[in-house]
Amino acid sequence: MTNGLKHPRRRAIEASTFAIALAKGSGRPLFMQVHEQIVDRIAAGELTPGMRLPPVRRLAAQLGINHMTVAKAYKDLADAGFVEGRAGGGTHVRSPNGTVSRRARGTEPAPAGPLLSERLYDLSHAPGVIGFTSNYPAPDTTCAAEFETCLQSVITDGLAQYFSYDPPNGRIGFRRTIADYLAQQGIDTLAEDVIVTSGAQQAIELVIRLLVPHAAPVIVERPAYYGVINVLRAVGARILEVPVEPDGMDIEKLEVHLARHRPRLIYTNPTFQNPTGVTTSMEKRRSILALARKHGVAILEDDHSSELRFFGDPVPSIRALSDPDDNVFYVRGFGKVFLPGTRLGYVMTPPHARRPLLALKAHSDLHTNGIMQEAMARFLNRRSHPKMLDRMKRTYAGMQRQLIRSLSDGMPSGTLIGRPEGGLSLWLTLPEGTEVSELYYRAVRRGVAFVAGEVFYASHVNPRTLRVSFGLLDNNVLEEGVARLCSVAKDLMRPRSTPSAIFT
Amino acid sequence: MTNGLKHPRRRAIEASTFAIALAKGSGRPLFMQVHEQIVDRIAAGELTPGMRLPPVRRLAAQLGINHMTVAKAYKDLADAGFVEGRAGGGTHVRSPNGTVSRRARGTEPAPAGPLLSERLYDLSHAPGVIGFTSNYPAPDTTCAAEFETCLQSVITDGLAQYFSYDPPNGRIGFRRTIADYLAQQGIDTLAEDVIVTSGAQQAIELVIRLLVPHAAPVIVERPAYYGVINVLRAVGARILEVPVEPDGMDIEKLEVHLARHRPRLIYTNPTFQNPTGVTTSMEKRRSILALARKHGVAILEDDHSSELRFFGDPVPSIRALSDPDDNVFYVRGFGKVFLPGTRLGYVMTPPHARRPLLALKAHSDLHTNGIMQEAMARFLNRRSHPKMLDRMKRTYAGMQRQLIRSLSDGMPSGTLIGRPEGGLSLWLTLPEGTEVSELYYRAVRRGVAFVAGEVFYASHVNPRTLRVSFGLLDNNVLEEGVARLCSVAKDLMRPRSTPSAIFT
Repeated sequence: MTNGLKHPRRRAIEASTFAIALAKGSGRPLFMQVHEQIVDRIAAGELTPGMRLPPVRRLAAQLGINHMTVAKAYKDLADAGFVEGRAGGGTHVRSPNGTVSRRARGTEPAPAGPLLSERLYDLSHAPGVIGFTSNYPAPDTTCAAEFETCLQSVITDGLAQYFSYDPPNGRIGFRRTIADYLAQQGIDTLAEDVIVTSGAQQAIELVIRLLVPHAAPVIVERPAYYGVINVLRAVGARILEVPVEPDGMDIEKLEVHLARHRPRLIYTNPTFQNPTGVTTSMEKRRSILALARKHGVAILEDDHSSELRFFGDPVPSIRALSDPDDNVFYVRGFGKVFLPGTRLGYVMTPPHARRPLLALKAHSDLHTNGIMQEAMARFLNRRSHPKMLDRMKRTYAGMQRQLIRSLSDGMPSGTLIGRPEGGLSLWLTLPEGTEVSELYYRAVRRGVAFVAGEVFYASHVNPRTLRVSFGLLDNNVLEEGVARLCSVAKDLMRPRSTPSAIFT
Repeated sequence: MTNGLKHPRRRAIEASTFAIALAKGSGRPLFMQVHEQIVDRIAAGELTPGMRLPPVRRLAAQLGINHMTVAKAYKDLADAGFVEGRAGGGTHVRSPNGTVSRRARGTEPAPAGPLLSERLYDLSHAPGVIGFTSNYPAPDTTCAAEFETCLQSVITDGLAQYFSYDPPNGRIGFRRTIADYLAQQGIDTLAEDVIVTSGAQQAIELVIRLLVPHAAPVIVERPAYYGVINVLRAVGARILEVPVEPDGMDIEKLEVHLARHRPRLIYTNPTFQNPTGVTTSMEKRRSILALARKHGVAILEDDHSSELRFFGDPVPSIRALSDPDDNVFYVRGFGKVFLPGTRLGYVMTPPHARRPLLALKAHSDLHTNGIMQEAMARFLNRRSHPKMLDRMKRTYAGMQRQLIRSLSDGMPSGTLIGRPEGGLSLWLTLPEGTEVSELYYRAVRRGVAFVAGEVFYASHVNPRTLRVSFGLLDNNVLEEGVARLCSVAKDLMRPRSTPSAIFT
């Protein structure tokens, strides 16, 4: 950043080397072809953030088209966040999220393999792209204002006490608040059983690192949250997948795996499972617990958003069904329901695991930020969250209905759309013969993104699955996003037209 | 907490079962004997937080002494934070830091081994004990006020943007600020090279987990920061220790280890080394770097407080001496200089390690709290920290001088006292024939604590070493603490008097 000479690739591109080939007469509007090909080059890493596109008139002259066509393509690219005009003049490739791409520096060799998919991921986060990618809520204004008030009051009371080191398990006041909060939901716990973590992700990682030595087998649902699959891969676990049925894990398969492989851990996400949205039935929860007891295996229960239930009766958590002697680790955070990004989560441990887990936590980051713990404790203690939750549930239930309706109307026939009882995601399976990877690629070019299902499988990917999350969207954007997605999906089902000119 | 029946041990103790035996006529005041024996029982875990001590008059009657003697012992115990009076009546054992002890619940079996040392550690943090235990500063009022202003401004500008997920490497604004901050100190870096972590501890742990597979050899200084020794033990590393000499590691030993064991990593803390305070000479820094190159081993440079230099010339960091091709990981945090407890640190990685390290960071906790990152960025951008730093350095330099003088005067002759060029700790070696463990035990009973040297050794403990840190103390407390410590140390050198009655 300090020395322009270090960035040899950050200069204007000569229009003459900017190979765009148009399929004139293909019926596809020319401005759209220019648009898509530039997105392709960004996706392929040929155009990197900061690069200047050729001037409109020069590119128009080179391609032999009207300069208004190029101008429209550039404008659409800018609206979608791929490029931006700069004060110094010219149109430049924009970095996603306003950050400089990790591969923008000339010094770092671009790895060939994951480049395209990572660039697409980055692009899917560009400002103009409608992202059905976030399985977490936009906190409503009251919620955000409430947290601001709490953080404000922490400051007003004086920050001095936070400028020293806290105990690794978290501040006692916050742990008591969490215990109360869980007690209100029928989960009986003691403040001493709670370990505060830097988000639920850290809780999951610590439990896995505690229980899973290298090469040890672990059971997960198939599909499962990729954050867990990644951690399991990082510790070198042998991942055993048990298919998710409409009422939870296939218990027979689970039993076979337990008997055959003697795994260390069952990771399960029984309510509004990420990504499928499935809620495990009461009966299956009892079966999982009974099997865990029988085979002496621990359960890691990830309960990320059970509060966001839109209809149907609540089902007790496995932890709530368990005895103190059971080896159940129960993990939650505040990001998937109220306040994403605060990085506050917790794990309730069985007593015997408390000390080793605490040691791992201390080695990892000593303790979680105390100011945030205190602000969140005050937020919960004000007890206005039940009202907020009611409002959020009404809003999101409405959005879920609308989304399901629009997708049912617009997606190609044969598409399966799950209807979970809560949570902020839908799980879709495209008709036979389609590939989500192709849909994804085209969708991002058309300004809409989702999460391709492949990341949720440790093996045996179902290439026709995708997760569509609606946490961050408002109704209008949602409709526009569905329209784009359905249009691309329908295109995908049609036979391709052959271009009338060869791409160079 | 919700059910009193679960805590069978939290009841008043019968005076009759409260075995205290006094050595009357020993010359040691009776109130002090009562005081010490109660502390002993707390330390041994026999008395746990919440337990009620026998009423003053009953204990006095049982021991056959004046009730004022017991009352004085109880008062001193309360002043030292070991016990507290309660609204409901009675004197109760207090939990350290206001938290309920991890072993306070009857359900958890108390492990026999580490109990005493852990209880002593807890006691050393009791409010009335003067703790020479904290190798970090109390932020001065300006510093704290400045951070409050910054956090306040973050709130005023609106928290909405923080309620979503950040990139795992940290917010671009904060990373740029860190790069600027380091550039001012002669460390040339790019914002892209910086990964923000939840404190320096997390940075250290992530680098170790990235580079050190199970059973792989790693070089550390002897003695070394126990936080690193703990992490290395947790990953199952083979720890090779290289003695610290007055100018840094013994380079010959280092070379032998490198040639013989082919380690993966050299962990070094070259400036104001924790715990010895030693600063590695320029020559040795170059040697370490050259040897790392020759043997293809990575360096993890922990630079926790090089800004707190009181005298002597600054020595460039190993990272500053290195080329971009060198495999040097440079770790710092904001806790050891300005604002402890904020849990903000960072690592500068060699380019090739950036992506895998980032993946580990993402698996660990997705990202570090964004509000805190932004507040700290603003704090640094106000550029008032150089002035604060000057003030802090003057203050702490004075304290260091005073502490060295008082310890030199008061400690038994033959005690070695290091005199580091900066930092907030001194490293002491007691005369031959003494044991710090005995000193520690007696010191805590007398209301003064330090860190016994044993925690800084992976093997071959020198049992005569201790770390005396003065970060959190003010001058008066410091003098009183030194007086207590020196008195206990001198007691230790004297032959013991035989008690005139047997302890039961």
